Amino acid sequence: MADDIKLDGVLSALDAGLPQAQARLLEFLRIPSISTDPAHRGDVRAAAEWLCAELAGLGFDASVRDTPGHPMVVAHSQKGDRRPVLFYGHYDVQPVDPLNLWDSPPFEPAIEVTPNGPVIRGRGSSDDKGQLMTFVEAFRAWKAVHGALPSDLVLLFEGEEESGSPSLRPFLHENADELRAGIAMICDTSMYADGRPAITTQLRGLLGEEITIRAADRDLHSGSFGGLAANPIQVLVNALASVKDETGRVTLSGFYDGVPDLSDELRADWGALGFDAEAFLSRVGLKHPVGERGRTALEMVWNRPTFEINGITGGYTGEGFKTVLPAEARAKVSFRLTGTQDPQAIRSAFRAHIRAALPPDCRVEFADHGASPASRMDISDPAFTAAKQALSEEWGRDAAYIGAGGSIPIAGDFKEILGMDSMLIGFARDDDRIHSPNEKYDLQSFAKGARSWARILAALA
Amino acid sequence: MADDIKLDGVLSALDAGLPQAQARLLEFLRIPSISTDPAHRGDVRAAAEWLCAELAGLGFDASVRDTPGHPMVVAHSQKGDRRPVLFYGHYDVQPVDPLNLWDSPPFEPAIEVTPNGPVIRGRGSSDDKGQLMTFVEAFRAWKAVHGALPSDLVLLFEGEEESGSPSLRPFLHENADELRAGIAMICDTSMYADGRPAITTQLRGLLGEEITIRAADRDLHSGSFGGLAANPIQVLVNALASVKDETGRVTLSGFYDGVPDLSDELRADWGALGFDAEAFLSRVGLKHPVGERGRTALEMVWNRPTFEINGITGGYTGEGFKTVLPAEARAKVSFRLTGTQDPQAIRSAFRAHIRAALPPDCRVEFADHGASPASRMDISDPAFTAAKQALSEEWGRDAAYIGAGGSIPIAGDFKEILGMDSMLIGFARDDDRIHSPNEKYDLQSFAKGARSWARILAALA
Repeated sequence: MADDIKLDGVLSALDAGLPQAQARLLEFLRIPSISTDPAHRGDVRAAAEWLCAELAGLGFDASVRDTPGHPMVVAHSQKGDRRPVLFYGHYDVQPVDPLNLWDSPPFEPAIEVTPNGPVIRGRGSSDDKGQLMTFVEAFRAWKAVHGALPSDLVLLFEGEEESGSPSLRPFLHENADELRAGIAMICDTSMYADGRPAITTQLRGLLGEEITIRAADRDLHSGSFGGLAANPIQVLVNALASVKDETGRVTLSGFYDGVPDLSDELRADWGALGFDAEAFLSRVGLKHPVGERGRTALEMVWNRPTFEINGITGGYTGEGFKTVLPAEARAKVSFRLTGTQDPQAIRSAFRAHIRAALPPDCRVEFADHGASPASRMDISDPAFTAAKQALSEEWGRDAAYIGAGGSIPIAGDFKEILGMDSMLIGFARDDDRIHSPNEKYDLQSFAKGARSWARILAALA
Repeated sequence: MADDIKLDGVLSALDAGLPQAQARLLEFLRIPSISTDPAHRGDVRAAAEWLCAELAGLGFDASVRDTPGHPMVVAHSQKGDRRPVLFYGHYDVQPVDPLNLWDSPPFEPAIEVTPNGPVIRGRGSSDDKGQLMTFVEAFRAWKAVHGALPSDLVLLFEGEEESGSPSLRPFLHENADELRAGIAMICDTSMYADGRPAITTQLRGLLGEEITIRAADRDLHSGSFGGLAANPIQVLVNALASVKDETGRVTLSGFYDGVPDLSDELRADWGALGFDAEAFLSRVGLKHPVGERGRTALEMVWNRPTFEINGITGGYTGEGFKTVLPAEARAKVSFRLTGTQDPQAIRSAFRAHIRAALPPDCRVEFADHGASPASRMDISDPAFTAAKQALSEEWGRDAAYIGAGGSIPIAGDFKEILGMDSMLIGFARDDDRIHSPNEKYDLQSFAKGARSWARILAALA
């Protein structure tokens, strides 16, 4: 079959058809599919139907599939003998407030010329309508040149990504046989800094926990009880301070079980990125990496687990001063996980650690804010090499395997429910202002993104 | 002059006149002199005028004295050759909300029979109208029996005690020559537990401080920055945890300079109180003293300095969870001070300690929430021995010199501005519910309080 592939033709068709592709995207962007806002429920469905009609027009077996929330759009190309590939994107968008900070109406998208080149301005241009249309346009050009879609494609589009994806996991469970593929392509991420193409191959997991420490059955006056009665804020502060040592290492028993060292291949790839931690931090007013001693900055955010205190509250926090010994103090904390760290074992170790730090008279209550293990894709799968090569050719720069410090739940869901790894390949830029006023998507991202997918389709064929 | 004192007659007159004294107090309590509430401004003045008229009727040279806030009432008995004694009380009261928790209207006071004896129920009965009327009634009986008031009395009544006393210090400064006495009697405190009479001879000082720690110039996502960027909550927690060591001692440089050991006399007095720390703590759901190792519970609250965290806040504290690394975290902290600890030296040492704990990229800002040194009265002054003896005779139990863990600013103000020590002698009970619904004052406190002052007047004469 590889003999029959006309990649140059597909790329030429994409270039020639760019004005029409832009027009289609602008039409899609005009639908205000804000999933969190019940007033836009009809618009969300309209976006699903628009997308479904596009796909059906290309020859996909496409349908809008109801869920208890917003619908999914599922589409299949003809069955063949290839390993099925699933493509994922989401057609819902973020709310637009504060509206007064937009320079043009968020749902009247337009091509705008900027000093950094032309951009598509409007809500959803980068997150994620513009990105998902990169592969849809690649399919269109493929069909035009080859007379048929690539076989064995499964497309899944979600309409609740910006509102917590409540229907996604049930939908994957209920339709597992239909959706299961050899690998998933998720187009909802950014390129590496400076527009270097990249495939995200590992994501940190996340474990959230809330602690409430209580002592007296009421707030006490520090004049009457100070120095005598347990102060829950002090107890909380002491307990939290002891979770990390002075070198930044987490002190919980067994915490580093399953934390992998970086492979030589990834160490080389990450080293070649020339990541400038100081420049990265300077964008938020910082200068110094403060993580574990003896680790590079990229290791710290991509390959090392962390403990973070995300919120803390106790006692009097208003104007002025109150000499109170409060009855309780609370904190929300999280761990980012790597490798095969077991979230439940870490939760247990954390709770044991806090309990052991409690003085007499103090009680602790824990609340579970969820947990997901880290994801590590098997980059020995030839699809990774193929996609990396295709991206490098399109962008004229070596594509990199990178990590992500955050969690992308869909990748974990695909692995857990459908048993498949994901490749996270996206063309957004750090300055796209997703979730903010004046969102944009570089026209280059859109055009070369579609060309990238054409190359990847060819490489996988 | 001592030969002419007819103490038995004064005590009999107090007993015989108790019904009329109660009636006067009830009339005083009917005036809703809530100083914090501008709607009651006229009532506060009415209470001042009622009190002034009472005193003038007894032969005092009494006047209502305007301030920028609520007025003072000042009164003098005839000048003589004795060391002047100042009496202090306050005629304003706390607000009454939540009103629905009162079993009877707060400003319709009444004598109520309870299983523990008769009480005067109503706002201000214990704090402080009932208490200040104990010495006013003692003066009345003294006058009735002796034909003249005790000489060299200075009376000062404040109408802003429940709203921060903004006019008090300026008034003391402006009228220092008129108000200066040999010693001050402050009737606004409780008896020791179980109704044992007591004179408070030492008060802890207080230093308040607020810390704000900042790192990045915005909130960060813990997926992108966790493990790399400084987290102000963690920095704050680490810094606060290091202010005390595992034995409960404060680690600040020079902190214990000026902290006195307990004198043998006070150690004996306090030991004789038979303070039951476990019973005291059990009233608020606690059991174990947690202060400095090797100190008795009473030493912990009366004679040892402390560090307390009174409030802390940072990051996300609402429902659910947010993986934020916040831009800032804040805490309000305080130190209780004893002996001659220098508040400004301790503030400096604290700030230096926090600054030394800051990692790179973190900035700290401090806010000064005031400071007052500890007060220690000179109990070698014979007035103390005389008053202690008088109290012991009235109550049939040894009166005790006790400490107070809290600050009573008026005692410090008298010392600083007028150069005089104070004796804090009050007859309130721990169950008087001051500042709360259903405030009461035991009739026994009122009757024997007045008799106690008669004995003290006789002893000082």
